[in-house]
Order: sequence, then structure tokens, then C-alpha cells
Amino acid sequence: MKTKYEKYVNTLQKLADIEHSIAVLSWDKEVNLPENAAAMRGQQVATLSGIAHEIFTEDSFGELLNELNAFGNELSFKQKRNIQTSLKDYKKFKKFSNDFVIRRSKVTSSTYHAWLKARKENDFALFKDALREMVDVKRKEAEILGYEDHPYDALIDEFEPELKTEHLTVLFKDVREQLVEFVKELKGHAQVDDSFLYKFYPKQKQWDFGINILKAMAYDFNAGRQDLSPHPFTTSFGATDVRVTTRIDEHNFGNMTWSCIHEGGHALYEQGLPIEDYGLPSGKYVSLGIHESQSRLWENNVGRSLGFWKTHYTALQQLFPGNLKKVSLNDFYKGINKVVPSLIRTESDELHYHFHILIRFEIEKGLIEGSLEVEDLDKIWNEKYLSYLGVEVPDDNNGVLQDIHWAHGSFGYFATYSLGSFYAAQFFKQALKDIPNLSEQIEKGDTSKLLEWLRENIHQHGMTYNADELCEKVTGEKLNFKYFMDYAREKYNAIYAL
Amino acid sequence: MKTKYEKYVNTLQKLADIEHSIAVLSWDKEVNLPENAAAMRGQQVATLSGIAHEIFTEDSFGELLNELNAFGNELSFKQKRNIQTSLKDYKKFKKFSNDFVIRRSKVTSSTYHAWLKARKENDFALFKDALREMVDVKRKEAEILGYEDHPYDALIDEFEPELKTEHLTVLFKDVREQLVEFVKELKGHAQVDDSFLYKFYPKQKQWDFGINILKAMAYDFNAGRQDLSPHPFTTSFGATDVRVTTRIDEHNFGNMTWSCIHEGGHALYEQGLPIEDYGLPSGKYVSLGIHESQSRLWENNVGRSLGFWKTHYTALQQLFPGNLKKVSLNDFYKGINKVVPSLIRTESDELHYHFHILIRFEIEKGLIEGSLEVEDLDKIWNEKYLSYLGVEVPDDNNGVLQDIHWAHGSFGYFATYSLGSFYAAQFFKQALKDIPNLSEQIEKGDTSKLLEWLRENIHQHGMTYNADELCEKVTGEKLNFKYFMDYAREKYNAIYAL
Repeated sequence: MKTKYEKYVNTLQKLADIEHSIAVLSWDKEVNLPENAAAMRGQQVATLSGIAHEIFTEDSFGELLNELNAFGNELSFKQKRNIQTSLKDYKKFKKFSNDFVIRRSKVTSSTYHAWLKARKENDFALFKDALREMVDVKRKEAEILGYEDHPYDALIDEFEPELKTEHLTVLFKDVREQLVEFVKELKGHAQVDDSFLYKFYPKQKQWDFGINILKAMAYDFNAGRQDLSPHPFTTSFGATDVRVTTRIDEHNFGNMTWSCIHEGGHALYEQGLPIEDYGLPSGKYVSLGIHESQSRLWENNVGRSLGFWKTHYTALQQLFPGNLKKVSLNDFYKGINKVVPSLIRTESDELHYHFHILIRFEIEKGLIEGSLEVEDLDKIWNEKYLSYLGVEVPDDNNGVLQDIHWAHGSFGYFATYSLGSFYAAQFFKQALKDIPNLSEQIEKGDTSKLLEWLRENIHQHGMTYNADELCEKVTGEKLNFKYFMDYAREKYNAIYAL
Repeated sequence: MKTKYEKYVNTLQKLADIEHSIAVLSWDKEVNLPENAAAMRGQQVATLSGIAHEIFTEDSFGELLNELNAFGNELSFKQKRNIQTSLKDYKKFKKFSNDFVIRRSKVTSSTYHAWLKARKENDFALFKDALREMVDVKRKEAEILGYEDHPYDALIDEFEPELKTEHLTVLFKDVREQLVEFVKELKGHAQVDDSFLYKFYPKQKQWDFGINILKAMAYDFNAGRQDLSPHPFTTSFGATDVRVTTRIDEHNFGNMTWSCIHEGGHALYEQGLPIEDYGLPSGKYVSLGIHESQSRLWENNVGRSLGFWKTHYTALQQLFPGNLKKVSLNDFYKGINKVVPSLIRTESDELHYHFHILIRFEIEKGLIEGSLEVEDLDKIWNEKYLSYLGVEVPDDNNGVLQDIHWAHGSFGYFATYSLGSFYAAQFFKQALKDIPNLSEQIEKGDTSKLLEWLRENIHQHGMTYNADELCEKVTGEKLNFKYFMDYAREKYNAIYAL
């Protein structure tokens, strides 16, 4: 079994090399690509993806996995888990016929282009046919993959393994009943001022400040770098090369700052994955929800806390005295936590954010189970925005066309953003319990103990535990929405109501 | 045959995608790589290279090639050439046993590390054992590949297909008898002044000037980009993405400028290769010598000509008035063409350059045929430098350890640098004949007709003709050293003797 397990490891490492090569090509595409090179780059990525797919779905590899799974008694717990995870993925891949894969790939491409066109014309009608076809493909995909309770389960599993629709339904009921109601309460109080964020902040100074914040978080620049790209993202080519990007708007200081902290949180997770498990499930992130918990814990629980800015605000004021010298730390803190409903998900505050996701969850679930039709999607969208956020959607680009996810066929992705915040609140609460004086450390600009705690409790395990198990292992219980509500109430009551 | 040829094309395109992916990874390594990522990147490149090797050497691909070669009567001339070239490469690859490939790879790695160590200690003695082993591997490689007249032939073929040792021997005899003698004559005349090149030239301004020069050459920034790297290079990920790098020394303006023009020349060739022949020999450069002819034609025949600077010197003076306002165009022209012997190949003027190559050619030939021993290489090196260039080599880093080529196992590479200059002189002479008023156009800063001529006569053909055939097709005769000597005499007599 030992040499068979080694053979398995070698195959997964080879696959990881290919996947990370694709990641380099994709990173370069976002950061560096010359105008005329897009088609060629797409072809190169497709070729590498095809090769990886061939290697992973080879019958002999499946036999190896089955053998290791059935007779691997002398394997360790971690090794067994690795085999189980790989076998699950292998079986999934094998379920798809060539015809289906080709159809899905074609539909994904045409849906994406239809979305681009519809965006250009600001007209959902131009996206309808393609999206209808895409929903059909995803429903077919769910049928092929199989499910016990709900077809949407099969799709969620791609992003958040083993999470069920049922669980999300309960969770978003809580969002609707508790968070939506809480935000209504806040509206009764005077609004805070954040106009200082929209003064002129020169590019280079913002860049320097972002780099310093990343350094303060202990993002390792010897194992990564920051660049500019139209949309901020984190990508890993292995734990020794985890890159982040940001964007800079000279009239919106917050844009760069919290994208740096957010991506920095993602990157700390990737830099902390065990390099000795390179390519194996135990060397990979658990799920998108857990990944997002790392970015949001840093972005919100740390990066939008009063304590964090006790140190960093002094540096910031010195860097931009004209804009900030008259803004007190407390007013800065309130401003960066302004709660206000908006049309665009990615521009939302950390409370309304989950209303955006709630709406997308309800729509996705409806489309996949067939209780809701693409035909009426713009109307449904606008009604929900009016009902949950109280905003009138003026046009499709500010409404149903704003996100790329459905155009990519990513149904089941959105919910992981909310899961990230909810896990983050629960994890952070636990960190505050486990680490003596964590709040004081953060006030002094020292997050090293927090990072150590994340490394030990979350990063080092890779996928050895699934999200549920990990949460229970770290906090003593499964995901509980209560922690997010506690966090929200404590923080925002102090900002708005007190 | 038609579908078989298509199958062949598909395989080569797939291989090109993998090779260009490797090129992206390698470019990123030179331009962007974080400190800790080198080992991982090396592994990723090795995995992709292994996959490409597997695909190319599959028996079924060899059968396809043999069939197309034997029965491809209805194929076009270009298609036949493609098959012949691929079959030649295939046969070459198949000659190597796995054991040999592994040995060569190990020796290459250890020789490279021994060279690094020897460089660090500035001591050739630390490189001797490894280099001896490497020479042994290369001699074995020549035996495996086979040859008619000289074992060195087999190694040259890797870089300059079909060129023979015999030909190089005649060529470098000419260099020794004509060029070495001519440079001796120049020494009788007063030296020119180039001190203005070593004043302070700020980085950003140099960068901007370099970009403008590339634009003036019609390097297509929509199909490429320039970045900084420790050693300037050009790399292609397909004709729609051909990138150049440069380096900037604030106290040596020439460093950046002619590296930009040189790499720009390489890049124009790659951008001009026929995209419809992507992956095929007919879509690839002919040889390193022809590639170098393109960089050197732009760097020297154009970029160090008086005419070229008639336009660009005005801009340059405006950009650096403090350094250049008192330097006349003529003095600038003389300074940038200063002929002076030096120790380091890469810092040489365009005449002494070939003395450096002559020395390396004599040494390589001797090592491979066994008439010369690694044991005495430092002494031999120093004697030749004293004899041909009249310079005393003070230490090994400034002598026999200066180049990486032997550490990489690249025997047969150096000569292609000289071939580049010689082809360039012959091509440029022909361009002057073929294009009415080319000199006047260049004086006006217009090199568009020259580029058109290069595209039509050289770039568009890819490997459809070998270097010999191409040279004859373009200039009516095979490579003739006379053209380089004519160019050298006319130019440098005017600068020094008149």
C-alpha cells in the first residue's frame, strides 16, 4: 500500500504542477496580458486543462484510488481522508460524458459572451436565452451528479463540499428574520459621515499604504507579491508563491485598503497551507466558505475594528494629512463602517452584503428547482431589492446583470460569501477566547498571535477536516449564525445607537 | 493524407501551447518571482517539459510522421518541409535512452551549481570537475546523435541546424585574418570619447526613452510588453504575445538603449512569424543565427548608424540636456561606436565581439574533439585573450567563468552570435539595394519599409527554408563574411581613420 500511496501522491503533485501553471497563466492574463493575446492565452489554458483532466480521469488512476480506499487500513487518518476526497472527485468527473462536457463548455462560452453583450447594451433581454440554456445545463448537471434531497445540493457541493440546500435555507431564513430586522432598527438612528473616504488619495501613496498593511498582517512578500488588476484577487502557485492584486481608485480610499486586507486574508491562508502536502487534499483549502472566512475575518473583524486602527490610523493621518487631520479616530471608525443599502453587491457594507446574497440564493434555488423562470428574472430581482434593501433598481447593469457568476455557470457560489462572514464571526469569537489579550495586541498593531492561532487551528489542516468538522473542532460547535448576529449587534449598536 | 496532416498539426499546436506555457512560467520567473518560489517553479516547468516530451516522442506520433514523410506527395512544399523538420527532431529525441537523458539532466544541474559556486569564489578550479563531466556528456551526446565529419557538428545542429564545424572553421579563420587585422589598424588612430554615456541618466527617463525607441521600431505593444529583468531577453508565447525585457543602469545609458533595440529586433521577428502556422516549423524561427541577425541588424546596422540618430538624437538631447547638450551628433555617433578591447563578451563593441566568439569557438571545438583539456582551460583562455585582444585577464570571473553557456551544456551556441552579425550585414546590404531611399527613410526615423522588407523576406517564412537557403533566397548567395568586413571597414574607417 505504501508504494501505491506514493504513486497516488506523485500523480496529484503532477496535477498540482499543471493546475498551478494554469494559475500562473491566468494571473498573467489579469495582470499583464497584451491586448491581442487573449485568444492565444485561452487556448493555452484550455490545452493544459485538457491534459490535467486526462491524467485525473485515467482508468488506472481510478483503480489505484479504489484499491487504496478499500485496502488502505495501514494508512493514517489524513491519508485516508485524502484518498476519500480524491475518489469523490474522481467519481464526479467520471459521471460526465464527453458530450455533456463539450455542451457545458460551449454553453459557458456563449453565455459569457451573451452576458458581455447584455452588459454593453444594459439589457437583460439579450441575456435571457443564453441564461435559460445555462440553467438547463446546470439542472442536467445536477441530475448527472445525483442528489438526495434537492438538485441544488449537487451544485453547491462544487464550492462548499457536503453543504446542503436545507442548511442554507435555514441560514438565510435567519438572515431574513434577524439581520434584515436588525438593519431596519439601525435606520432609525442618525447616519454616520464617510465623505472623507472620497477625497483625493494619490495612487502611489495608496499603493505604499496597502503594501505596509500587508506587511503588518505578516503577508510574506518572499512568498508572494502584490500587483494591480481590474478586479482584486488572490491566486496560489503553491504555498511559496501566493499573489494578491488590488485596484486603486484615487477618489475612493476604501476600495484599495479593504481589498488589500481582504485578499491578504485569503493569501495568509494559502501561504499557511502545509507545503509538505503539496497537491494533496490535505494541502488544499477546505471550501470557498472557509477560504472566505479567512479574508473576511481580516477584512471586517480585524480590519474594520476600532482596535486595528488605533495604530494604523496614525500612520494614515500622517500620509494624508490634508484629508484626515480633522477626522478623529472615532469618526474614521464610524465612517468606514457606514451601513447603507446599495445596488451593487461588491460595494456593500458588511451587513447589507448578506441581503444581496440572500436574494441570489433564493433566485438560484428557484431556478434550479424550477419554481422560478429566467423569463421574469429582472422583475423578480428588482422586487426583491425593493423588498429587502428598499432600493429601486434603475437598470439591468445595476441589477440582475451585475455579477459574472451565472454567466460562468457558477450556481452555488454566492452563498459561500455569506458563509465566510458567519464562520469568521464564530472563529474570531473563539480566537478572542483562546488568545489572552488579543484585543490589546491588535490595538498595538500586533496580529502575530492571531495568525499563529489561524495557522494552527485552520490553515495547517488543509482539507483533512470538512468545513463542518473543522468548525466544530475549532469552536466546539457547528456553524451558528448567532455569532455573526452577536458581532453585528455589538458593533453596530455601538456605532449607531449609542 | 489530409486528415493525417491535420492530426500532425493538432499535435504540434498542443505542444506549442505547452511550450508557450513553459515560456510564460519562465518569463514570470525572471521578471516577477518571489524569493522562496524558485524550487516550486522549477518543478512546475519540469512537469510541463516532461509532458511535452512524452507527447512528442510517442511511437504513434513517429508513425504518423513517417507515413506523412513517405506518402505525402500531395502535400505542399511547405508542408513537406514541416514534416521533414519534425521527423528530424523526432528521430533525434528517440536516439536518447532514458538513462542518458537522466544523466544529462543531473550533470546539467550539478554543473550549473558548480559554476555558481566557482563564480562566488572566483575560482575556476572549483568548476573543473563538473565541466569535465559535462564535456564528457556532450561528447557522448555527439556520439549518440551521430555525425559525418566532426563530433561538434552534432552539437551545433541543436542551435544552427545543418551548419558544420568545417564552415565555422573557415569563417573564424576569416575573422582571425581579416577582422583581427583590421582592428589592429584602427588602434593606430586617436581614440574617440564616450564619457557622456556614463553620466547620470535617471531610471524613469531611460525607461520612457526605451519605450519610445521600441515604438519607433514598430514593436507592437498590443502584442507584447516590456519589463525589467536582471538580464535582458525576448520571449514569445505565440506571435500575439512577444515580450521583451531590459535593464537600466543609471550610470550607463548605452546599456538600456541598445539592449532595447537588440531585444526589439528579436521581438519584431517573433511578432512577424505567421500566426496561421502556430506550432509548426513554418511558424518558428529558422535558427539562432538568423534570430540573432534580426536583433543585430536593428542594434548595429540601424541602431548604431549615424542616420538613425539624426532623428532620435534630438529627442535624446531634449530628455537629457545636462548630459548631452554639448555633445554634437557626430561626437555622439563616434562615442557609441567606440572600439576598445575588453574582458567581458557582453560588454564588447561590435568588432571585438567576434574575437570573444572566436576564442570560445576554438575552445569548444578543441574540447569536443579532445585536442584540448578542461584542466588547462583557464590558462588557454587567458593566453588567447592576450593574443587576440591584447588584454590581461585578472581573474576567472573576468575570464573563463564569465558565461553561463557551458554550465548549461550549451556547446555550439556561441558561434550563432557571430553568425547573427554576419547575416545582418549581408541582409542589410541587400535591403539597401531593394528599398529605394532606405537610408533617407532611416534618417527621418522611418523604418517601416525596412520592417516590411524583413517581414516579407525573412519573418513570414518561418523554418520553411533553412538558414543557407534563406540567405541565398534573400541575397542571391550564401553567407559571405565579406559583407561584414565591408560594413566594418566603411563604418570604422570613417569613425577612426578619416
